[in-house]
Amino acid sequence: MSSVHAYSRFVAAEDRVWESGGAGVQRQILGHDDLLMMVRVRFEKDAIGAVHTHPHRQVTFIETGSFAVQIGDDKKILHAGDSFFVPPDIPHGVVALSQASLVDVFSPARQDFLNASSLP
Amino acid sequence: MSSVHAYSRFVAAEDRVWESGGAGVQRQILGHDDLLMMVRVRFEKDAIGAVHTHPHRQVTFIETGSFAVQIGDDKKILHAGDSFFVPPDIPHGVVALSQASLVDVFSPARQDFLNASSLP
Repeated sequence: MSSVHAYSRFVAAEDRVWESGGAGVQRQILGHDDLLMMVRVRFEKDAIGAVHTHPHRQVTFIETGSFAVQIGDDKKILHAGDSFFVPPDIPHGVVALSQASLVDVFSPARQDFLNASSLP
Repeated sequence: MSSVHAYSRFVAAEDRVWESGGAGVQRQILGHDDLLMMVRVRFEKDAIGAVHTHPHRQVTFIETGSFAVQIGDDKKILHAGDSFFVPPDIPHGVVALSQASLVDVFSPARQDFLNASSLP
């Protein structure tokens, strides 16, 4: 299962399904191996990525739109072209202030996403 | 030096300089720590990211435009929204087929970029 797409070197967006990531949130698994994973996430306006934690470190690029981002006790509004970094086990979440999209990268890979994925 | 921006959790694009990455290529260091680093790179049409290798694993998101991408002996044209994954030590390079930009993520961080950076 993950062994197939763990070695996808070229990933055409049209070949990757959008999967539900919660209300108003969809995600698309992009290039990855077991230690590094890129995921594109699109949000409807006002959709929420609830505050959560995971042991993976994360870096995120705001592709389009604007988000209110919380990391630990800090909050900031970020726009397309901005980014943020989340150390392991630090609570973080986002609220989409407009229709918006971001690119999350995790290290190691989010096996929970792969296990839930409908990718071949 | 790197100790300062190694802990930048929120990174506003306007606070980050664009640095030369070669002819027609500029890069901007975004969120990172020592083990995970995001870098935005913009290319003039026909600008080249020459084939090279490094021990870091890399995943890249095509933000805008189109690139001819080479990974090992394989080549593919990728467009905005597509991505690619480069295992450690595998030769890879890109040619911008239009004015174009991408987001590279490296694990671990590219200390060579930090050492060359004019970031505070």
